[in-house]
Amino acid sequence: MAAADAEETEGAVEGEQTPDVESDQAGNLSVVIRSEVLQQVVDQLLTVVDEAIFRLGYDGLSVMAVDPANVAMVEIEVEPGAFESVGDGMFPIGLNLQRLDDYIDGASGADPITLTFQPETLSVEIEHTNVEVEMAGINTDMMRDEPDIPDLDLDSEFTADAGVVTEAIENSALVSDHVELESAVDDGKLVICGHGDTDDIKTVLGPEKMSEANFASDAVAMYSVPYLTGGSTQGSKYSGLLKPVSSGTDLRVRFAEDTPMKMDYEFADGFGSVRMMLAPRIQSR
Amino acid sequence: MAAADAEETEGAVEGEQTPDVESDQAGNLSVVIRSEVLQQVVDQLLTVVDEAIFRLGYDGLSVMAVDPANVAMVEIEVEPGAFESVGDGMFPIGLNLQRLDDYIDGASGADPITLTFQPETLSVEIEHTNVEVEMAGINTDMMRDEPDIPDLDLDSEFTADAGVVTEAIENSALVSDHVELESAVDDGKLVICGHGDTDDIKTVLGPEKMSEANFASDAVAMYSVPYLTGGSTQGSKYSGLLKPVSSGTDLRVRFAEDTPMKMDYEFADGFGSVRMMLAPRIQSR
Amino acid sequence: MAAADAEETEGAVEGEQTPDVESDQAGNLSVVIRSEVLQQVVDQLLTVVDEAIFRLGYDGLSVMAVDPANVAMVEIEVEPGAFESVGDGMFPIGLNLQRLDDYIDGASGADPITLTFQPETLSVEIEHTNVEVEMAGINTDMMRDEPDIPDLDLDSEFTADAGVVTEAIENSALVSDHVELESAVDDGKLVICGHGDTDDIKTVLGPEKMSEANFASDAVAMYSVPYLTGGSTQGSKYSGLLKPVSSGTDLRVRFAEDTPMKMDYEFADGFGSVRMMLAPRIQSR
Repeated sequence: MAAADAEETEGAVEGEQTPDVESDQAGNLSVVIRSEVLQQVVDQLLTVVDEAIFRLGYDGLSVMAVDPANVAMVEIEVEPGAFESVGDGMFPIGLNLQRLDDYIDGASGADPITLTFQPETLSVEIEHTNVEVEMAGINTDMMRDEPDIPDLDLDSEFTADAGVVTEAIENSALVSDHVELESAVDDGKLVICGHGDTDDIKTVLGPEKMSEANFASDAVAMYSVPYLTGGSTQGSKYSGLLKPVSSGTDLRVRFAEDTPMKMDYEFADGFGSVRMMLAPRIQSR
Repeated sequence: MAAADAEETEGAVEGEQTPDVESDQAGNLSVVIRSEVLQQVVDQLLTVVDEAIFRLGYDGLSVMAVDPANVAMVEIEVEPGAFESVGDGMFPIGLNLQRLDDYIDGASGADPITLTFQPETLSVEIEHTNVEVEMAGINTDMMRDEPDIPDLDLDSEFTADAGVVTEAIENSALVSDHVELESAVDDGKLVICGHGDTDDIKTVLGPEKMSEANFASDAVAMYSVPYLTGGSTQGSKYSGLLKPVSSGTDLRVRFAEDTPMKMDYEFADGFGSVRMMLAPRIQSR
Repeated sequence: MAAADAEETEGAVEGEQTPDVESDQAGNLSVVIRSEVLQQVVDQLLTVVDEAIFRLGYDGLSVMAVDPANVAMVEIEVEPGAFESVGDGMFPIGLNLQRLDDYIDGASGADPITLTFQPETLSVEIEHTNVEVEMAGINTDMMRDEPDIPDLDLDSEFTADAGVVTEAIENSALVSDHVELESAVDDGKLVICGHGDTDDIKTVLGPEKMSEANFASDAVAMYSVPYLTGGSTQGSKYSGLLKPVSSGTDLRVRFAEDTPMKMDYEFADGFGSVRMMLAPRIQSR
């Protein structure tokens, strides 16, 4: 996933610009996507927001979301190759994710879902199996701006099964709301730790658990467990960035001390890519 | 199920008559029924009431129930052929359905359950597997009268898999508490719709989804979703008439505008039949 | 399980003595035990207490617990044969059971778990799979004394599948918080009854359901259902002594009127043994 490095440069991220929501209405405003692909997009977005602006059309799908507390971001791209049909137009539409999730629930696996933008009503028609939904869009002017994921210098990097990483973070959750990622250059291990008031728990990922590991230095970085794996009433009301990432998925993790971490994975046979960013917990030492 | 048409004519349905609860005590007041048959009866009754009067004996089983709000009715007949033994007596007994459900829970599938009326204590003895229960009956004088299911002119009629119908109604529940059934004479389709404040959802049942369809006219009729498929805190406290009807069962549905709908299905190899009726929601148009 | 009879004689059970918590620190304070064996120990102890003193070492494992209301006791022994390694030292350590349960959750089946006592910090190091936990011990001086299970004259005795006994007691729970065990010498049956305000339920265990039965006299004894199978908000907050005993396990039950009952079973290929005792409910007759 070389594309994961082609991040936009930092710049005027905050405030002024409004979302780019002009539609290219010259062409056919209809796309057809497999149920399981759209479901993964919706599930991943629901870990940070209730509604998001989808950009759908000849370029596939592009959507970005940041949680209300500005702690976690998700950016998703799905290339046209993952679609059964993308038409030749492009439309942006703000959608409530929970409702969209309900509406596509009756489709599964490779069932095709047709999404058709209806500019006159600012709504989208969703068709699958024997179901037809007329879903109102959300006025994108009222929605939050979409920040860019900044470029960061993250010199500890590894790739492992998402299930293994999730389990290690859930172990930490047994004793603390924070998790520490510790990279050890010498023995090529990554240690995922929780430090509690009385007990400590460490999960060690040796080279056999990581398909790739590049640690430029020994680093220790601390992040919020609820934002990663959910399950807490503290932190976010959302379910944890890693919840929708199935076991068996290669998860690439990059981090550095007192710096946001990034996590990437691919789906839809490599045509879809998710990039997540999570702000650090500052260590009080 | 030709019997489904042999409904009693409307008449003095309300009030005066008391339930017919005389037992024919000349004979053997014991019946033996398969667990799965009795379980279906209990599950279906529990969608509308907490207690009901069972009439058991040489004619099999007959029971009828109407929900406290008078919106939904269930009538069940089980012919002697579904019983392993019916004796030569007949007894009526009022029973609490939740308790009966608990008491037969240890039996399953074809396990025989013996029900024996004990007139002196107004109780029933329930025996199955290695369990024996002495269950108190309810004084039938204190119980509600049982209305007849009225004869109605319902000229839109179709038969489909109960699972398909249930799923379509649950789709409607995503946007509304009401569901509309729309029959289209010309294209032979039935459309099940929910109209929400912002979104609409339609499930289309074409001829391939219906084993039978007779639509005398284009008709639109509106019913309460919670009474059909449950899941709401509004409407009835009960779980929805269709909840106990398993996917794969042929469900015959008859409806007309501003008129109660009827639904019928068979169980116990055709020896058991359920008829349900649900009052309409009047459309404000 | 002849050992089950080798109970200590009654004596100065209450108060004065303090728990025997001296460790034999001469040797290796590390043991290795299969996950499923330790899990069974923890699950069974959690039916009566939140924390317990484990004695681990060359003799295997020994632990005893009594619930806060002094109604139910559990005593567990695991012989060295169930361990992969027992070292040559012995250490006692007070542990919070729920936390221990969490920490071993990532191991399953035959996964080896290493427990190492660290005398200087009064803590135990738990290692399994790729997880390492540093768990603080509880000061055993602050913990409850451990009473002995008294010697009792219990002349009604039977052995049956724990699943069958549990189901029979759960049947009784449908009508009452108490369960009666009735042994009938003449027909060699055991009847497990619940007597409710209006309904009674009996489950009959004939000779075919019991692998062994010795009834010296007809006896009726009454016990608390919540302490046996849980599920009630009354009685104990714990989950019921029989909850962790899997169906298929031979459960030996001994009882007598107005006397505590004892239940024993083996696990870990016979190297582990559990003895449970439950005080009677006195019958008001």
